[in-house]
Amino acid sequence: MNAPAAGTAEAPYQAPAGLAGVSVAQTTVSDVLGRKGFYHYRGYNAVELARRGRVEDAWHLLLRGGLPTAGQRAAFAAEAAEWRRLPDGVAGQLPAIARLSPPGSLASLRSGISLAAQAIGCRPWTDQTDAETTEQAARLSAITPVLAAQLFRLARGEEPVEPLAGLGYSDNYLYMITGEVPDDRARYAVERYLTLTIDHGFNNSTFAARVIASSGADLGAVVSGALGALSGPFHGGAPARAFGMLDAIGTPENTERWLRQAIERGEKLMGFGHRIYKTLDPRSVLLHEIALELNSERVAFSELVEKTAVELLAELKPGSELYANVESYAGVVLEAAGLPREMFTATFACSRVIGWMANALEQIEENRIFRPVSRYVGPEAPREIPGSWQPGQP
Amino acid sequence: MNAPAAGTAEAPYQAPAGLAGVSVAQTTVSDVLGRKGFYHYRGYNAVELARRGRVEDAWHLLLRGGLPTAGQRAAFAAEAAEWRRLPDGVAGQLPAIARLSPPGSLASLRSGISLAAQAIGCRPWTDQTDAETTEQAARLSAITPVLAAQLFRLARGEEPVEPLAGLGYSDNYLYMITGEVPDDRARYAVERYLTLTIDHGFNNSTFAARVIASSGADLGAVVSGALGALSGPFHGGAPARAFGMLDAIGTPENTERWLRQAIERGEKLMGFGHRIYKTLDPRSVLLHEIALELNSERVAFSELVEKTAVELLAELKPGSELYANVESYAGVVLEAAGLPREMFTATFACSRVIGWMANALEQIEENRIFRPVSRYVGPEAPREIPGSWQPGQP
Repeated sequence: MNAPAAGTAEAPYQAPAGLAGVSVAQTTVSDVLGRKGFYHYRGYNAVELARRGRVEDAWHLLLRGGLPTAGQRAAFAAEAAEWRRLPDGVAGQLPAIARLSPPGSLASLRSGISLAAQAIGCRPWTDQTDAETTEQAARLSAITPVLAAQLFRLARGEEPVEPLAGLGYSDNYLYMITGEVPDDRARYAVERYLTLTIDHGFNNSTFAARVIASSGADLGAVVSGALGALSGPFHGGAPARAFGMLDAIGTPENTERWLRQAIERGEKLMGFGHRIYKTLDPRSVLLHEIALELNSERVAFSELVEKTAVELLAELKPGSELYANVESYAGVVLEAAGLPREMFTATFACSRVIGWMANALEQIEENRIFRPVSRYVGPEAPREIPGSWQPGQP
Repeated sequence: MNAPAAGTAEAPYQAPAGLAGVSVAQTTVSDVLGRKGFYHYRGYNAVELARRGRVEDAWHLLLRGGLPTAGQRAAFAAEAAEWRRLPDGVAGQLPAIARLSPPGSLASLRSGISLAAQAIGCRPWTDQTDAETTEQAARLSAITPVLAAQLFRLARGEEPVEPLAGLGYSDNYLYMITGEVPDDRARYAVERYLTLTIDHGFNNSTFAARVIASSGADLGAVVSGALGALSGPFHGGAPARAFGMLDAIGTPENTERWLRQAIERGEKLMGFGHRIYKTLDPRSVLLHEIALELNSERVAFSELVEKTAVELLAELKPGSELYANVESYAGVVLEAAGLPREMFTATFACSRVIGWMANALEQIEENRIFRPVSRYVGPEAPREIPGSWQPGQP
């Protein structure tokens, strides 16, 4: 630790913009070792968990603290099927919510989960037992994909599909979106993506979740706030945009010219570059493998774009060390699995809510409210009130 | 500034718990000078603005950058009356939202504002013009009190009251709650409270607002996330609880015994002590004056409780430097103005949303996404996967 003395009211520590490189908490949930190209959930290599397991395994690990035994696996799957049920008072509101935003909108999902949290009786965690709070964390995680799928279908004018108890997390998710039980290949692809994206250090939405939880707020406040953060284009909005870039480029022949112009205009290339990984993003490696199996032509194009972008950035912005990240193959995988592009960000939200809940539960175990300070740089205070202001009352 | 070198990925700066004393941004919106017992909005003494002006004056200052001239005041009031209109697709949903939580619930308000933000078409600010984003900030600020009042009445089984265009912010707010145009005394009291609580540095909800805005998210995400943060008992939930303590004590005779037992049990006394002010909270001074005019008996009791608490804390927890804060008189003022206790926190939300919006607009002017790091303290990684985990697939 190179920690300097804590700041004081008179001379606070001035953190870098965006709190870059500032450690704001201790955690046992996950860690990202950027320089090593490695990340883990509670110490276990996340890529290995994704390669071998199902969403429920990593979910069990994050919620219950360990990987499940065979018996725990079966019991957890049965519990999860119960958690999926929408509470009374929600289903009837979904058509009206869905009508207000385009299909796949995280704003609809935010309104839906906020309502569902009310319906399952989430109260400030200070006023509940730990068991109640943990149960709500599980239910909110399970309800999010149901809401995402049903709001999507409703926004497209289709009937919502009820969850099917016999299916696992990933098959059920695809089933609720498409109305058909997916084949193994599609299920496998989505399962890998979801498991890989459950948690990833103190990203913006996870941090938002902990800031909100630290006030004593209910988990509905936590999840709707974090969903809001994830909806930002600099965060969860990126996968769909990365995919959009491939479409905008259109053909292999057009790649170099398109990218050169974009870089020269100073545009940020979506799907490239990440604050944490300065080497290859480990999530990309597995997604790349799967993407290759599912749609090799699209992957070849994506690779051409990636290779060209890296070369051009080295030429035009030397020293910027940009590498392909998770978004550049995620789109290929999700689309080949049958997920419409509008659902990319919402799908990300479904896995990430598991991470938010684990972080919120950890936050409240040993809580201190997040309340930093700011540096005032406006006109010197106290400022004389101008004569032009004549409130003429009370 | 005593800023050390910024942390690096290998050796991040370890911030104190809750980011206490860490300055996370530069701002021109407001500042709190704790040791001086002084706070201001854009340089102007906030207490003086509250003493002389109306909510619209401080709102104009925060949204438009300066105090209004007479002409600007009239124009702003007219605009504000327009901003209050609920967009289509919201009013019909309010009964269902209100049914799920008790009257005055911030969870209902969170669901309602999330829906309203969808209905007014909030999109990621990255995808909008600044003018669109600023207009939405104004509308969300104006809609929040309408939703708060209507959801409250609906939760009590009463008909919602539509806003009245001829009334100002504060009279209209009381009118929508009680169904009657308030007298000057009540309006004056609520107006002071609202103006005093619009902004107050980087408190938890304001920080949450900026964290969410920094991802590029829409203002609906910002306001629903901040409302969630405010709903926590360590933050906005405090005023009603402070008032509840007075009720729990019940009589002057019971004061010392009740407080002594509470302190000896290690309970936190709601309404006393604040991380920032180590002297008298300047908000308390004005609220105390007003409270005294409105209900001197209740104030006398509150003062007895305060005095006894300060003495007992000095005796039982020496060195803790606790002083009365804004919550200890706010309850007296709000109740005497005719606001039911369940609406204390929601009323706080109505004023604070103006501050959140000013902070969000400032954040996006010169944005960098908030993405700190954490220190992993769990089992050493990579951890060997136990043999008991037999996922038995893909």
